Amino acid sequence: MRPAELKALLRQVKLGKVAPDAAARRIAEAPVEQLGFAALDHQRALRTGFPEVVFGLGKTPAQIVAIVRKLHARHGVVLATRCDDAARAALRAEFPKAQVHEAARCVVLRTRAPRLVGRVLVLCAGTADLPVAEEALVTARTMGSRAELIADVGVAGLHRLLAHHERLRGARALIVVAGLEGALPSVVGGLTDRPLIAVPTSIGYGSHMRGVAPLLAMLNSCAAGVTVVNIDNGFGAGYAAHLINVGGGRSKR
Amino acid sequence: MRPAELKALLRQVKLGKVAPDAAARRIAEAPVEQLGFAALDHQRALRTGFPEVVFGLGKTPAQIVAIVRKLHARHGVVLATRCDDAARAALRAEFPKAQVHEAARCVVLRTRAPRLVGRVLVLCAGTADLPVAEEALVTARTMGSRAELIADVGVAGLHRLLAHHERLRGARALIVVAGLEGALPSVVGGLTDRPLIAVPTSIGYGSHMRGVAPLLAMLNSCAAGVTVVNIDNGFGAGYAAHLINVGGGRSKR
Amino acid sequence: MRPAELKALLRQVKLGKVAPDAAARRIAEAPVEQLGFAALDHQRALRTGFPEVVFGLGKTPAQIVAIVRKLHARHGVVLATRCDDAARAALRAEFPKAQVHEAARCVVLRTRAPRLVGRVLVLCAGTADLPVAEEALVTARTMGSRAELIADVGVAGLHRLLAHHERLRGARALIVVAGLEGALPSVVGGLTDRPLIAVPTSIGYGSHMRGVAPLLAMLNSCAAGVTVVNIDNGFGAGYAAHLINVGGGRSKR
Amino acid sequence: MRPAELKALLRQVKLGKVAPDAAARRIAEAPVEQLGFAALDHQRALRTGFPEVVFGLGKTPAQIVAIVRKLHARHGVVLATRCDDAARAALRAEFPKAQVHEAARCVVLRTRAPRLVGRVLVLCAGTADLPVAEEALVTARTMGSRAELIADVGVAGLHRLLAHHERLRGARALIVVAGLEGALPSVVGGLTDRPLIAVPTSIGYGSHMRGVAPLLAMLNSCAAGVTVVNIDNGFGAGYAAHLINVGGGRSKR
Amino acid sequence: MRPAELKALLRQVKLGKVAPDAAARRIAEAPVEQLGFAALDHQRALRTGFPEVVFGLGKTPAQIVAIVRKLHARHGVVLATRCDDAARAALRAEFPKAQVHEAARCVVLRTRAPRLVGRVLVLCAGTADLPVAEEALVTARTMGSRAELIADVGVAGLHRLLAHHERLRGARALIVVAGLEGALPSVVGGLTDRPLIAVPTSIGYGSHMRGVAPLLAMLNSCAAGVTVVNIDNGFGAGYAAHLINVGGGRSKR
Amino acid sequence: MRPAELKALLRQVKLGKVAPDAAARRIAEAPVEQLGFAALDHQRALRTGFPEVVFGLGKTPAQIVAIVRKLHARHGVVLATRCDDAARAALRAEFPKAQVHEAARCVVLRTRAPRLVGRVLVLCAGTADLPVAEEALVTARTMGSRAELIADVGVAGLHRLLAHHERLRGARALIVVAGLEGALPSVVGGLTDRPLIAVPTSIGYGSHMRGVAPLLAMLNSCAAGVTVVNIDNGFGAGYAAHLINVGGGRSKR
Amino acid sequence: MRPAELKALLRQVKLGKVAPDAAARRIAEAPVEQLGFAALDHQRALRTGFPEVVFGLGKTPAQIVAIVRKLHARHGVVLATRCDDAARAALRAEFPKAQVHEAARCVVLRTRAPRLVGRVLVLCAGTADLPVAEEALVTARTMGSRAELIADVGVAGLHRLLAHHERLRGARALIVVAGLEGALPSVVGGLTDRPLIAVPTSIGYGSHMRGVAPLLAMLNSCAAGVTVVNIDNGFGAGYAAHLINVGGGRSKR
Amino acid sequence: MRPAELKALLRQVKLGKVAPDAAARRIAEAPVEQLGFAALDHQRALRTGFPEVVFGLGKTPAQIVAIVRKLHARHGVVLATRCDDAARAALRAEFPKAQVHEAARCVVLRTRAPRLVGRVLVLCAGTADLPVAEEALVTARTMGSRAELIADVGVAGLHRLLAHHERLRGARALIVVAGLEGALPSVVGGLTDRPLIAVPTSIGYGSHMRGVAPLLAMLNSCAAGVTVVNIDNGFGAGYAAHLINVGGGRSKR
Repeated sequence: MRPAELKALLRQVKLGKVAPDAAARRIAEAPVEQLGFAALDHQRALRTGFPEVVFGLGKTPAQIVAIVRKLHARHGVVLATRCDDAARAALRAEFPKAQVHEAARCVVLRTRAPRLVGRVLVLCAGTADLPVAEEALVTARTMGSRAELIADVGVAGLHRLLAHHERLRGARALIVVAGLEGALPSVVGGLTDRPLIAVPTSIGYGSHMRGVAPLLAMLNSCAAGVTVVNIDNGFGAGYAAHLINVGGGRSKR
Repeated sequence: MRPAELKALLRQVKLGKVAPDAAARRIAEAPVEQLGFAALDHQRALRTGFPEVVFGLGKTPAQIVAIVRKLHARHGVVLATRCDDAARAALRAEFPKAQVHEAARCVVLRTRAPRLVGRVLVLCAGTADLPVAEEALVTARTMGSRAELIADVGVAGLHRLLAHHERLRGARALIVVAGLEGALPSVVGGLTDRPLIAVPTSIGYGSHMRGVAPLLAMLNSCAAGVTVVNIDNGFGAGYAAHLINVGGGRSKR
Repeated sequence: MRPAELKALLRQVKLGKVAPDAAARRIAEAPVEQLGFAALDHQRALRTGFPEVVFGLGKTPAQIVAIVRKLHARHGVVLATRCDDAARAALRAEFPKAQVHEAARCVVLRTRAPRLVGRVLVLCAGTADLPVAEEALVTARTMGSRAELIADVGVAGLHRLLAHHERLRGARALIVVAGLEGALPSVVGGLTDRPLIAVPTSIGYGSHMRGVAPLLAMLNSCAAGVTVVNIDNGFGAGYAAHLINVGGGRSKR
Repeated sequence: MRPAELKALLRQVKLGKVAPDAAARRIAEAPVEQLGFAALDHQRALRTGFPEVVFGLGKTPAQIVAIVRKLHARHGVVLATRCDDAARAALRAEFPKAQVHEAARCVVLRTRAPRLVGRVLVLCAGTADLPVAEEALVTARTMGSRAELIADVGVAGLHRLLAHHERLRGARALIVVAGLEGALPSVVGGLTDRPLIAVPTSIGYGSHMRGVAPLLAMLNSCAAGVTVVNIDNGFGAGYAAHLINVGGGRSKR
Repeated sequence: MRPAELKALLRQVKLGKVAPDAAARRIAEAPVEQLGFAALDHQRALRTGFPEVVFGLGKTPAQIVAIVRKLHARHGVVLATRCDDAARAALRAEFPKAQVHEAARCVVLRTRAPRLVGRVLVLCAGTADLPVAEEALVTARTMGSRAELIADVGVAGLHRLLAHHERLRGARALIVVAGLEGALPSVVGGLTDRPLIAVPTSIGYGSHMRGVAPLLAMLNSCAAGVTVVNIDNGFGAGYAAHLINVGGGRSKR
Repeated sequence: MRPAELKALLRQVKLGKVAPDAAARRIAEAPVEQLGFAALDHQRALRTGFPEVVFGLGKTPAQIVAIVRKLHARHGVVLATRCDDAARAALRAEFPKAQVHEAARCVVLRTRAPRLVGRVLVLCAGTADLPVAEEALVTARTMGSRAELIADVGVAGLHRLLAHHERLRGARALIVVAGLEGALPSVVGGLTDRPLIAVPTSIGYGSHMRGVAPLLAMLNSCAAGVTVVNIDNGFGAGYAAHLINVGGGRSKR
Repeated sequence: MRPAELKALLRQVKLGKVAPDAAARRIAEAPVEQLGFAALDHQRALRTGFPEVVFGLGKTPAQIVAIVRKLHARHGVVLATRCDDAARAALRAEFPKAQVHEAARCVVLRTRAPRLVGRVLVLCAGTADLPVAEEALVTARTMGSRAELIADVGVAGLHRLLAHHERLRGARALIVVAGLEGALPSVVGGLTDRPLIAVPTSIGYGSHMRGVAPLLAMLNSCAAGVTVVNIDNGFGAGYAAHLINVGGGRSKR
Repeated sequence: MRPAELKALLRQVKLGKVAPDAAARRIAEAPVEQLGFAALDHQRALRTGFPEVVFGLGKTPAQIVAIVRKLHARHGVVLATRCDDAARAALRAEFPKAQVHEAARCVVLRTRAPRLVGRVLVLCAGTADLPVAEEALVTARTMGSRAELIADVGVAGLHRLLAHHERLRGARALIVVAGLEGALPSVVGGLTDRPLIAVPTSIGYGSHMRGVAPLLAMLNSCAAGVTVVNIDNGFGAGYAAHLINVGGGRSKR
């Protein structure tokens, strides 16, 4: 049960539209649903503002489908990430209305489109970083943020980036995705006063060590205000950016 | 020149209190001041909302004193971090009004106390993590955030943390500082919907590898919404938390 | 020859049911059986309480089948771990009565069900950690421990774990399996006074480095009483937990 | 309050010797005592069987003294580990009755000698491993285990070890401390059916990497039943060995 | 031209059986033969006692076949290592008389069987180490050493090794192959005064890191007289052991 | 637009052959061309002397074809590197005139053959290093350098290298490609006064760690004047060598 | 004997000013001078264009002084790098005319000032990188290059760098020194067509790992034409830049 | 008791000069002498040909002195390595006849000079590698090998090495000591057919990682017959070289 739902329910109780006992039962619904191979944490939406996200890595397609069905039934929205080819095929077959993002390897199943708020801006350094950038984009949008992408603005051609200077300052949170040497977050960070989440990608070879090189670079960025997520973790960046994006607004709700 | 100063100046021009030429001169002041060993970036305040911070590592005390003097003269506020014993002594001798934070090894010199806004909450897992937590605290406060500290709430005694549950949700940004296995951010992250910045510390031995163990743990946190800064980088966390904390408010100014 | 068999044999000698010479021959059976590619250590059961376990990695299916046959003939029970698809198929074809644990990739062949004693409790943080947890479970049970599993109780949803608090204290040895940041052993370790064996798993991506991140976290756990085995080494954890579980009882047998 | 104390108190309530209200107050004593720089977890004794241990690394001598005083006052026994020269001097000055173990760098302050039970055996491979072995020994004894040490039985002279074969089997838990290549746990593990905790030490040079070499060796031991703690972590090994040593007995109390 | 051939040729010159000019031409044969993709170093046999060995990794089957043909034509013996399935098939098709060692992935083509001298003893810790041990065996024999193998004598069952004690001392050079924790060389090294070459293998999982764990262990062996070659480098060990084995004898030839 | 083209255009303006407005339009052509998944940096030729090179890793064949078409249309020459089998097939199908270098995995499409100048010499240590050496060769030639290759001159047969001593000194820039221990650049560097670019390759096994061993060796070379590029980065070496090769001449153009 | 000296000598022979025998003796002077602890390679100047440079690390002050005296006597110029405090003091005492560069820890002793040619430009990202930048500067100048320094132009304040755009293109070789994330070479590399040598520095903390972070970043730079030297290796960069700088000119001499 | 002593004793028994009982007592002397902190393995001389060597690292001066006294009393010769300043001072004070090798940090105490046999040749690449080379030299000589040193023959000046070509082939075992990139063993290995032990040293900076760079290089040497010991382990190399050196001769004794 998401916070908005809980508040709505309580308002209905206040207005006499829902009997206290019925409301209690509904709130008291088992917060953890046991599937044997998984213990679904239905309270997470209440606690953190969004239902549990399904991390597909290491799960079988059948397990993913079962979890997605349960979460969708309870919360009306599910995001599944790191779904390999078999998992995406299974989800598409099972839930024809699911939106399947092939490059980003993630799937969204939701009953109703959210009202998007604020603005999250995702930049990526090269074409090869696009799948990770898209995972961030899909995550932020699924959670309710207005989000945009600027692709292929790596530091070897600074003018491509500088052309977007205004848009940088219009965002409430920035995500910067880069492989190779991971220099883009430092340059962008020096141009803006917005919180910036850096995402290293695993594209490179040799001493790149599948993303370790840009990860270390980003952790050592000379630009203040840069924080970092795991290699290729577009989801984590999109999630955190959404929290930042709505941060200001929430206290007023 | 910080954004607020610039706006104030322009308002004065509009009101006829400052002649356009004079305003132009003042705005046009050289954005980079050359000290030979340093090129002070005075425009940074305009671009990113806060003047350049002095990173003491690798600089001589004399260099630090010279840079602090120049920045203070121009912006009215300076933060110097990673100042070793000699540097702190030199700054204290030169600027008797400077606030010197011994454990956090940082120094603040400012003309006027800022009006603190919002709320940043800093948690640390153990007593040994305090110096880093304090660096975060000092940074956030110097930049203008209201900031508080909860110390010694490591995961081996969960009730110590759970007792603070309400305060977690009252913050607009969280900073979680931990050494050893770096598990605290995951536990805190599961309890709240606030953006959370994790800071690994270098306290540990053996396979801890001076902070690499908790750094990796935090990058792989199972809690969504966690971003990470470098080992012992309290400054970076405080800076980013401040940006997040004021993020919501800025768009209304 | 397992210790119990040896004692039984000696009792029979004492009772005159087995002639000393016959007993001597039986005890004197070559302690090492040479297969050319392997030297089976039949004394191990005597020395360590359980016959040699077949570690399938790097062995051909034919080698595994041959070793299993010899060990089963001598000891009545064999455990083979890390059997890939081909090895499991070969064992199933050769020994129709073998129990094949697909996810855990291990195979048990035994003549008689053991009497299970004590209690070993296996917890795992996520669905993806299940195969390793099952390897631990199968190992502990095969050796003679009563063993149970609690799945999917990761630290991002603490209430799932806290609901099992009582069961934690009812066990004589705990095994905690976790991937990602490996925080679960620290949290569990803080809730109990039972010996706890932590098992990092290789599920994760990027800076997880196939299990190095949780391995380091577990080695640096702030909870006292935690010891660690190799990445994905469910077998090692199950074996050690069994020794701990029966430890108290043995001296009385 | 340790479990035994709690039970004693409850018995006194049952016998009418302590009024329920007084007992309630005593049990309800704040479980966490705030020192500003530390939050003492007094419930830990209840939860895990032993009061919080003071980990000296990263704490000032004054902080350590203050924490030791508080813990001793409440629980009657304190163990402080990783105390550097200054900390040991401060503790000795403040608590003349404290037992200071110079080589092991740990300090014990207790009101009453414990009754030692069971048997923990500590082996170390070389003279240079002695300080770590002693930390394990002191820890196990302070917690209440009977514990013994066999020094300098490295694998390059196997007969030194084989001479102690009987003592290996008389222990309920083994601790094996080794630097260099860390081979001793594998050899000992092959000789016994007792749970074995391996402790790598940081003595070595070059590719030893301050203990990483024996740590990896121990994690990959071919002997089943071996679990591992952090480099130089004699404390962790002693603590876990104590839990194993008393494990069998507890369920009968 | 191998040293023996050179000496034989010169003797024939002395005896008048070969004209000086003809001998000069034969000695003067281009020491480097250019194949475009390779520059065969025919002088190596003269310089180091054995013709160039073909290292198959990174070469195409066609390249390997071409090089083998040239070397065989000139020297009468060729050893090709690290030949993958395709390369071995190509060699077998091209040179029906070649000896193909499937598990060891190496191929020997020679005109005449060598007279084997001295004694090299190869030990391996487990069945999974056999392919590497065989590569060492084949190499030593191809170069002219009498060589034997003792398999599966890992340290978890010491008696298996101790049974071979006499054979250890009968060898002039020892090769000890081990994966997992790589402890066998230390134990063997403590039992003998023979030069010992340790070979780590890549069989293991998790923190084994494909052989890094035993490599580090062997480099840090507490037994003096142990030297080490690269992970899985049976060839290098066999080659060096041969040089040691014949070392004493050569100066008399 | 490459510098030469720009100068030619301006000369035509001066001569009245092109109207200033037309020239302005042509120069003003959008410097960045947006393809959605890529932002082509057409100014790079002007800025750095050569059009953007297509780095194939992480791009789909369709993306590579689209980018190659655009770059070729604008600049008359394109180099695409790291093209896997599918990408090379797609490029060959689409651009029948493209030169496809199979081993080096790179493709060149150009309208006119360049006039080659200066001299770049590429050496490689072994046959397995050839593909990387060829990538360097193709790159240097495509950019306009005369370039030659000397293959298989590893340090275990020094005379093979010393035979080429004169050619070393005739080059204006040297590229030395080596796997295994990466010693060749040090030896070559000691023989010459030419700038030398070292390229480690990933061919090796075990502790080679896919090129890390020779990379570290080259970074620590005892020969002065050696600089290093990433593992297997023949392209980077060829590009830098070309810049060095033409360096002297450019200032006169 | 440097090449210029050799040519001068030969011209004098041609002109009859030096007798062939005398010239032969002078050329034939022992190319290697034995000091017991060192074998001075006097031919290096002939082979590589500059006499052997004294690398002070690991040498005693007395050894350094002895080597410097010999080299200076033979060649008229010596450069000693990595001289610690004691070594610099000893050199200053022994050779009052030596130029001692304190921050760069290097010492130059020369008889005659060189004629400086071409142009090498050294940029450094921060004040803390200055000592390494100076080592590069001193090296390039000592060898005969005109060299200049631009300090403190890190990427977080791009306008500081862009202001020097023209100077970038006026150089024949660029050296870019940076610590932290090492992004500066990529940005500079995108602005110019000059060969660029990147130098990572060890200033940073935590995951910086004493320079590994910027080293990896530079090896993975997205800007073509970047080559890299070891961490803090200003000497190596200065040496290589000098070779590049004079490269164009040499072939005409 | 060393083998030669044992044989001499037995001959005396045969000749009636020593009573069998007396001989038995002498042979039966406790093979392990307990010092509390050490268990001296007096049988090692019998088993491996040389008494236990004292490895000083991690031992106190008092412990080292006590062990040296015991070993000297029993065997007449002791070698102590890795003795720091305090340990060397204590040994010199206690045993005025001890030979103290300052640079090599080792001490030899012996009653009688050994007869040196065979020939071991030690080469080192630079002056900074001398202390390690000397440790190897002292070790080989103390054990009874004739041993010589050639210093400062690094690969950047090949002619220095080639001048010693004959001496290379006159040795029965080679030790090659090198820091920096560790290329010397490969070059030497290509010039000779003698067993070669490579020793990496820790002198270097940055990516040298205190010897890891040359260690990896040596493990990946392209020269066959190269084996490797730990970083800075001159002792291990000297010991192994001695075993190889005497290997041929022993079987005839």
